Amino acid sequence: MIQTLSNYLQTQGEFIEKRLEHLIPLKKGDHQQIFQAARHAILGGGKRLRPILTLATTEMFGVDSSLALDPACAIEMIHTYSMIHDDLPSMDNDDYRRGRLTVHRQFNEGLAVLAGDYLLTYAFEVLANIPRLDPEKKIKLISTLSYRSGSEGMIGGQVMDLHFEGKKMTPDALRSLHFNKTASLLIAAIEFGGIIGNANEPELDCLRAFGANLGLAFQIIDDIIDVTASQSKHGREISSDILNDKSTYVTLLGIEQAYEYAQKCHEEAIYSLKLLPYDTSLIVHLTDFVLNRKQ
Amino acid sequence: MIQTLSNYLQTQGEFIEKRLEHLIPLKKGDHQQIFQAARHAILGGGKRLRPILTLATTEMFGVDSSLALDPACAIEMIHTYSMIHDDLPSMDNDDYRRGRLTVHRQFNEGLAVLAGDYLLTYAFEVLANIPRLDPEKKIKLISTLSYRSGSEGMIGGQVMDLHFEGKKMTPDALRSLHFNKTASLLIAAIEFGGIIGNANEPELDCLRAFGANLGLAFQIIDDIIDVTASQSKHGREISSDILNDKSTYVTLLGIEQAYEYAQKCHEEAIYSLKLLPYDTSLIVHLTDFVLNRKQ
Repeated sequence: MIQTLSNYLQTQGEFIEKRLEHLIPLKKGDHQQIFQAARHAILGGGKRLRPILTLATTEMFGVDSSLALDPACAIEMIHTYSMIHDDLPSMDNDDYRRGRLTVHRQFNEGLAVLAGDYLLTYAFEVLANIPRLDPEKKIKLISTLSYRSGSEGMIGGQVMDLHFEGKKMTPDALRSLHFNKTASLLIAAIEFGGIIGNANEPELDCLRAFGANLGLAFQIIDDIIDVTASQSKHGREISSDILNDKSTYVTLLGIEQAYEYAQKCHEEAIYSLKLLPYDTSLIVHLTDFVLNRKQ
Repeated sequence: MIQTLSNYLQTQGEFIEKRLEHLIPLKKGDHQQIFQAARHAILGGGKRLRPILTLATTEMFGVDSSLALDPACAIEMIHTYSMIHDDLPSMDNDDYRRGRLTVHRQFNEGLAVLAGDYLLTYAFEVLANIPRLDPEKKIKLISTLSYRSGSEGMIGGQVMDLHFEGKKMTPDALRSLHFNKTASLLIAAIEFGGIIGNANEPELDCLRAFGANLGLAFQIIDDIIDVTASQSKHGREISSDILNDKSTYVTLLGIEQAYEYAQKCHEEAIYSLKLLPYDTSLIVHLTDFVLNRKQ
């Protein structure tokens, strides 16, 4: 299965990459730098975990996953914009991401702000213009994505992140921060698959519970990797979370307990998933992959 | 009529202000600063020209303008986010707007980036959740707003603005810049009224031509006011366009020719409007007001 999953990840990753390249062409003109900056950030890297989850969830409901390709790309655009803005000097002040210069370092800060704004705006344009999807479903996708990436979701989590910088956090506050900052967009990615796959409301609730626990497990593992992986080995910089004196699951719980907590979230995620009357094996394997990854 | 128009502007301005206050409440929690920052930027000031145009255009088509209130607020959210980001140190570096500290000066730069992101995201959430509007129309509004405020509209104009900073521009390039940066969102505001008012495609084309010329006239008058108004008299700072050595209609054409060009745009705007078989008098008066304003 590992070979199969790795093939699946590669194939779907390329499917998404090609569509993103098509959706964000290098237009010429006095505004061409916006496309260069957006492509620098969104192409040629990344695990594509969120859009792959959208495709895999749609498939689980027996619906052609090509219907979910543009929605999956919209999710990746929101994820990428949030990283561009999060990397800015006034936020985490990161010079590198995935071994490449961040947008404000490769271009300039003003363009990084605008490239983020562009990808954020364009995600909604892409959703509004998907062919072969009825308007009710498009509205559900737009409502879901704006809510999960807004003040009660991803942006809210970023604000908490700024608020708690340099302050000691309780594990509950850290959970709430990461539920918003990280899990929310993963939940949206999975809800997208459910909406396109005609899931009913109880099924969507299972998907949301699954996404929340997957998101937390993902973040805890990320915190652990930040501490254990060195730049030379895995191409990671020293984490700006560590440099910026942020609370992480590792600083609050220690590596061992953090890992146990990730396993608990993983188990709960799988439990929610198994309540669904579909073949969940692909998504179970994706979830295992998230927990067991080393970078 | 001047008294009547001024009453109309005040009444509609208050209608919009109250709805914005309701839509952006001061929620409590570790993310509450985002609401403080957004309210600082969006409440208690501004001409509300764009949302008032949405309401007035809807009325012109004989449709209850309360249907257009949330769409009008979404337009104002996009306008406000663009000002928050435009004021950042990495862009125009403005300390004041409308006589008050800009968001990054009142709070901090990271929060200003996030407050802009929040208003941008929330505009689409508001549009997706408008009651009493069918999904097809909502999708048209979302498609229109994302296009007009994206890379081929407002954001594209901002990128050109960065691109040409310190460079001499031709009048054609300046027209293209302002068509994107300023006129695009005014066009969207007017298209919104047409979409909600069930305008057909030729009518929407008239509205677009009207909006484009109104937007250019608006920007030229803005450039003239920047030069002629002093801070003591009208509460304006010395324009950052002047400080940042940007081309304006005044630096390219001189005040007199710039004013003539504004009048020409104004005439063309009125011409497009008069092609519509409706009572256009209210919007004509609004257009005159834009040309004759002193601040």
